[in-house]
Amino acid sequence: MTDDVAVAAPPDSAPRHLAPGDVGLVAPRDFVYTQPFAFKSGQTLPGFTLRYETYGQLNATRDNAVLICHALSGDHHCAGWHSPADKKPGWWNNLIGPGKAVDTRRFFVVCANVLGGCQGSTGPSSLDPETGRPYGVTFPFATIRDMVRAQKLLLDHLGVSQLHCVIGGSMGGMQALLFGIKYPQFVRRVLAMATTARESAQAIAFNEVGRQAIMQDPAWNAGDYPKDGGPRVGLAIARMMAHITYVSDASMDRKFGRRKKETASSAAYNFDIQFEVESYLRHQGQSFINRFDANSYLYITRALDQFDLAQTYGSLEAAFAPVEAETLVVGFTSDWLFPPEQNRDLALAMLRAGKRASYAELATDLGHDSFLLESEELYALVRGFLERDQPYTFDFAI
Amino acid sequence: MTDDVAVAAPPDSAPRHLAPGDVGLVAPRDFVYTQPFAFKSGQTLPGFTLRYETYGQLNATRDNAVLICHALSGDHHCAGWHSPADKKPGWWNNLIGPGKAVDTRRFFVVCANVLGGCQGSTGPSSLDPETGRPYGVTFPFATIRDMVRAQKLLLDHLGVSQLHCVIGGSMGGMQALLFGIKYPQFVRRVLAMATTARESAQAIAFNEVGRQAIMQDPAWNAGDYPKDGGPRVGLAIARMMAHITYVSDASMDRKFGRRKKETASSAAYNFDIQFEVESYLRHQGQSFINRFDANSYLYITRALDQFDLAQTYGSLEAAFAPVEAETLVVGFTSDWLFPPEQNRDLALAMLRAGKRASYAELATDLGHDSFLLESEELYALVRGFLERDQPYTFDFAI
Repeated sequence: MTDDVAVAAPPDSAPRHLAPGDVGLVAPRDFVYTQPFAFKSGQTLPGFTLRYETYGQLNATRDNAVLICHALSGDHHCAGWHSPADKKPGWWNNLIGPGKAVDTRRFFVVCANVLGGCQGSTGPSSLDPETGRPYGVTFPFATIRDMVRAQKLLLDHLGVSQLHCVIGGSMGGMQALLFGIKYPQFVRRVLAMATTARESAQAIAFNEVGRQAIMQDPAWNAGDYPKDGGPRVGLAIARMMAHITYVSDASMDRKFGRRKKETASSAAYNFDIQFEVESYLRHQGQSFINRFDANSYLYITRALDQFDLAQTYGSLEAAFAPVEAETLVVGFTSDWLFPPEQNRDLALAMLRAGKRASYAELATDLGHDSFLLESEELYALVRGFLERDQPYTFDFAI
Repeated sequence: MTDDVAVAAPPDSAPRHLAPGDVGLVAPRDFVYTQPFAFKSGQTLPGFTLRYETYGQLNATRDNAVLICHALSGDHHCAGWHSPADKKPGWWNNLIGPGKAVDTRRFFVVCANVLGGCQGSTGPSSLDPETGRPYGVTFPFATIRDMVRAQKLLLDHLGVSQLHCVIGGSMGGMQALLFGIKYPQFVRRVLAMATTARESAQAIAFNEVGRQAIMQDPAWNAGDYPKDGGPRVGLAIARMMAHITYVSDASMDRKFGRRKKETASSAAYNFDIQFEVESYLRHQGQSFINRFDANSYLYITRALDQFDLAQTYGSLEAAFAPVEAETLVVGFTSDWLFPPEQNRDLALAMLRAGKRASYAELATDLGHDSFLLESEELYALVRGFLERDQPYTFDFAI
């Protein structure tokens, strides 16, 4: 997902973290699991850490939790502000907060950085206690299932008895679907957006080019690089390319068109930045390398590529057979990475499997990242799905 | 364009270069222009070479010539075979030959590697006579207009009095359109396919990521590298990514889907090749770096990005005002690089400008490279457009 689709900040004069509807200042915490954890690959870790945030309060019956699952480049910080000086709030701040679509007065919202990630959870950039150096590519191969299992252990640790809902877009949607499959008694609602039961060849192809850009960068060094080093050039290239797939031709044309930078006259006949879209892409690449680990990028894109519900379970209907949750799948018309048909097909397979499922398609022109956009239509869908028949009538004081 | 869309070769036992309808063995020639050539940028060269091929014979009135303009990664070898040992014929061999849609019994077909290219024509990899070293980025910035002007000088040299038609797909289509605009008395028909009056922000963005992959490769060395060296890694990354934009999601899914390599079981939990589409893409990248110069890639993508008829002439209608040629524009439904609408808009602007123009849209699922596909529908369109009202009733003996 992009760095700058999140809700626009109000003018600097306003104390943004105190804006009505925001969860305000939040702080991440670490869940340290100290028992051996076996990955789907057969590899094990002696334990792991998940960095997570929560907003709202768990109710007495411990069943008002809403788990938010993040996408490839996301993290646990999905709402609120870490400090009044932050330039941006959490990545889904427009959706989550007191009175918002995911209403933190009603729900206990949990979001964790995935296993294999690089924002505080254990991943390839974590230090291997046996060597004192980053795991690098010796880190166990993490699948979407492994990510889901680790988050279930976190929810157990938090004392959640049942998930009111699990919500995610893109890779988060894959996790949401798998939560419903693996823990049918535990998950009451699944809300998956801009996702797929398996990537197409084109999506795999884009991920592979990104991986090649990283692995062919000499600084990758077979995954063995210091924390502040690594294949920054390759990672920036991967991000620039991937970013194009997160938006749409129409939205890029509206935002940049063929407008040229003011300095472009001197650049007309060389290879400096000439078009605004070039400058924007380079910014996307540069800001990404300062916050993301290249090996995590390799691991997580591989997890995405390998996710294939029909192959794993024999068919989509067989995959969804155990599901008890009500499911809502939301597709976006301009999403060409995980196109609307792939989202619709999820709901159709669930219906064929005799499950309560629905599909909503929103007309947008922002592409794959549409699930992050400010959209009253999306908010209403989410609110309606979360609050329908829900028993929580109390209002927590924040 | 891709390396492998060209017509499939018959079984090895057949002498393929003698196949009926093929132009047979052909040899490139060099046109050496020895007068100063001023580029649109104001830079000059003391002269240049264009490598070209011709098929068929120029008639007595010297007006049966058909100029073929190639795309970004194409060259002058568009039909026939250089040697019986060749693995593939010229890139448009399915379209061009005796009795084919571009019938070499009727027409004198000319195709030249563009100025700025790297297949024999003068470009950044050519030796600067002043230094004895490759020009690199000191080569003048070449625009589509410069490419067109150089080809016009070749046609003058060949004694062509009038072009029966200029044909091109993608960047070749841009050249075809500009030929009609710059030399209205000289061009009788323009056939442009899978092209655009200007790239969208998304197309510029993909080109920019490719350029960054090249320029950030340390081996690029600010464009100064030996003939056999250079940014091979960056160029391969650029090509892999660009290749995805030349085909379609549907065609990749049909060709590869999620099929895994036979060796994939061992690769399931590492970053080796796992899916067939990965192997295919790496092959595309590797074969490209053995035939293409990275600096040429920078120059030609920049020329593509800068092409903008409406901006150059004030409007598309103003751009087409001088055109005398009949024009046929062909778009392909699955082309998401230069989508059908952008092709249709060319013909519409010509019609608004009072020109004889038509638009044909072919339903394909091969994406941008559809103009290279074997398609009886395309052949019939091309033949009909070339032979309608045409005065050449003679039949050359080949």
